[in-house]
Formats: sequence, C-alpha cells, structure tokens
Amino acid sequence: MIERDIRNEIVDLLCRYVYFLDHGKLEDWVECFSDNCRYKIITRENVEAGLPAGMLDCQGKDMLRDRVSYIRLASVSNIHRDRHILGAPHVTQAADGSYDVVTNFVVFQSEPDRDSRLFCLGYYEDKVVLVDGLLKLREKTVVLDNDSVTPLLSTPL
Amino acid sequence: MIERDIRNEIVDLLCRYVYFLDHGKLEDWVECFSDNCRYKIITRENVEAGLPAGMLDCQGKDMLRDRVSYIRLASVSNIHRDRHILGAPHVTQAADGSYDVVTNFVVFQSEPDRDSRLFCLGYYEDKVVLVDGLLKLREKTVVLDNDSVTPLLSTPL
Amino acid sequence: MIERDIRNEIVDLLCRYVYFLDHGKLEDWVECFSDNCRYKIITRENVEAGLPAGMLDCQGKDMLRDRVSYIRLASVSNIHRDRHILGAPHVTQAADGSYDVVTNFVVFQSEPDRDSRLFCLGYYEDKVVLVDGLLKLREKTVVLDNDSVTPLLSTPL
Repeated sequence: MIERDIRNEIVDLLCRYVYFLDHGKLEDWVECFSDNCRYKIITRENVEAGLPAGMLDCQGKDMLRDRVSYIRLASVSNIHRDRHILGAPHVTQAADGSYDVVTNFVVFQSEPDRDSRLFCLGYYEDKVVLVDGLLKLREKTVVLDNDSVTPLLSTPL
Repeated sequence: MIERDIRNEIVDLLCRYVYFLDHGKLEDWVECFSDNCRYKIITRENVEAGLPAGMLDCQGKDMLRDRVSYIRLASVSNIHRDRHILGAPHVTQAADGSYDVVTNFVVFQSEPDRDSRLFCLGYYEDKVVLVDGLLKLREKTVVLDNDSVTPLLSTPL
Repeated sequence: MIERDIRNEIVDLLCRYVYFLDHGKLEDWVECFSDNCRYKIITRENVEAGLPAGMLDCQGKDMLRDRVSYIRLASVSNIHRDRHILGAPHVTQAADGSYDVVTNFVVFQSEPDRDSRLFCLGYYEDKVVLVDGLLKLREKTVVLDNDSVTPLLSTPL
C-alpha cells in the first residue's frame, strides 16, 4: 500500500486547474471537477453580508460544459490572456473524508499592444474528493474581493 | 515518535497568518506570534543602507495587542480589504533549532466601487520556533520594496 | 540511501533563483544553471504562433556570465528593484530522469519615490537535472504574456 501525499496532489490539482484556464484548455478544466460538482462565483461583499447568491452558480458537470460552449461561441474576438497566481493552499480534512482547501488567488490579463493589468483577486474555497482514486473538485467557490468583475463575460476564474 | 513535516507546518502557519489579516481577524493574527516576539516593518532602502530603524517596531505580544486595539479604534471608516499572495517560503534551520524563513509577498487592496490595486510588496524574514509543540513567529521582519506605504495607518502586513 | 524529496528541492531551487534576482546577486543566479544550460525569453504570442525565436537566447553558462557582466556595466543608473512572486511549480519526471517544471510567475518593480508597478508575467518551462547531487537548471524558457517588455535592458527574469 502506497501512502498518498494528498497535500502535494492537491497542489498539483490546483496547478492543472490554473494551467488549463490560462491556456484556454476549457474542456480539460471541466475534467478537474466531479460529476456532481458545484462551481460558484460570489463577491466577498455578499459573503460578509450573508447573501449567498452567486454572480454565477453552476451545478453539475454538464452545466460547466454548457458554459464552456457558450464561451467558445461568445469570445471569438476576445484575445485577452489570463494568468493566475495562487498562494499556498491551506488544507484541512473534513469529517466525511473530503478535503477543505482555501487558497488566495490573483488573476492578471494581458493582450497584444497593451500593458498587462490586474484583473481580479480573492480566494477559493474548495471541497476536494477522491473519485476512482483521482482528486476532483466537488465544490469550488470563487470569492471575489473586487465587485466590478463581470464573470459572465470572462473565462472561468 | 512522529516525525514532523516542519516545512508543511511552516506553510500552514503562513497561510493562517495571511488568512487572519485578509479577513480582519487581528486577535487571531496576534496568536501566530510567541510571547517574546518582535514584529518590525522596514524599507528595503534602509536595509541596504544599513539603517536598521523600522517604520514600525513592536516588541512582545502585548505591544501587538495594543496595536490591534488602536487599529480597531482608528479604522472604523476604513473599508479596504487586503489580499496577500505569498511565494513559497525558503526554510533553513538555524544552529539553535529555530527556523529561518524567507518569503516574497505582495498585498493588493480592494474597496467597493473602485478597481483593486497593488498596495505593497517585498519579503518576510521570519524566525519560527516551537512553543509547546506549536510553531510560532519569534521574529517577523517585513521588508518593503516600496517606501511610500504608511503602515501606521494600515492593518499589519 | 536517503530518499530525496525532489519536489521540495525544486521549490528551494526556484526560491534561490528568484532571491538572487530580486537581490541583485546575479553571479549566484548563474550558478543555478548547469554548464550546458539554455536560457531563453520568448513571448507567448510567438509560442502560440509556432515561432520559436526568443527575444533572448543564451546557450551555456559562459554566455550567462557575459550577460551578467553586460548588465553590471549597463545598469549603473538603473535603480529599480524586482520582486518575483511564483505560483506552485508543477513537476513531472521525463523519461531520461530529468524533471519538467512549469511555474506561473509575476514580477513587480519598485523604485524610490514612485509607486511599485506590475512589470511582467507569464510562466517558466524548466528542465531540471541532477549535477553532482545538486539540482540545476538545464533549460529555462521564460514565456512572457505581455510583449511590451524589453528584456535586453532588464535584469533576467
């Protein structure tokens, strides 16, 4: 029996997650999630006010796939490139064996002939589970510090 | 005897440290330090000029508690939110068994109805010690690359 | 036989790499590379267009040393300070035993009496090898998201 180093595997999962987003591999990004996943974007302002409604709330992998199709259609002329920088994930194990992971993030955007710019920032609250021996995102809540982001028009965060 | 993974515990200590700051849990932030701690903010310019005087220099946990009380009083109308992003800590063990930890950091600030902005950046020089089996900050020196920050008016870095 | 924790050693190598750059220790920076190294800076635009020509392409440690000498001569009056923030490296082992490492990065610059600013960002594609028991960079490709950077005039990235 090999003892797994779950912490390193979670770091790898997050690395792949941001690599797929930053390099436009959105179909691969969907595969970071479990089938019964939930992906939500919410402002920190709403979290602190106890208002749980998200700017975006996808339930299940099919809804994520729909969203990717929509982005593929809508963003033909969108040539910005994202770059995620993540802090170290803080990992704790929940009573049901899943892992709760909190990670600070910042996203920069670049496009030809313009200076790169700070796009958005905040933290991830993830629930990570083992599915057939692989770590998957069961829940990802993206909490945004800045409320002026329009995620409906952007690639996922 | 369980062999401890000190490196991962130091990463966790830093994660908690920035989580407490970014989420306004300043009383919890104080508990990251040992009783006989020293917390100092200094510019890189002064470090390189051999001028050790800090912009802020707190000795002992009580002085940190005083500072938190002051911030609680003074910043009623301060609604900015901080977000720390840290690089990987570089850990070495000192002759006395403590750990020297150097970590690059950047802090962004957000407030309602404004774009988030780069606030300050630099590196931490920390001395981490075991106190009753828990890792605590014995010394934290925050070295700022930018000298235009006024830490007296801000939450800790 | 001691089992090495290669992942942590790679994190340490990257920590030293950025520490040397951020603190002007360019001669130490050169020592992060193997003798037969390649160091290249290229824009993401060129990578995606299949144009492999770099903005900078150094082959061998001597060429890196020449570059450091040039920077020492040219940048007498250049007083900006760099600060690298790296994401977690994603490490995979290649068939020949070397390690392929992909790491997101962002660099900020500071100078006296001015606000710090976002300088450049992108990702590193590194090939890391063991040389006499030490990890060294055999290849480093710096892929820049923003194409307005002039690396010939700057310290290495």
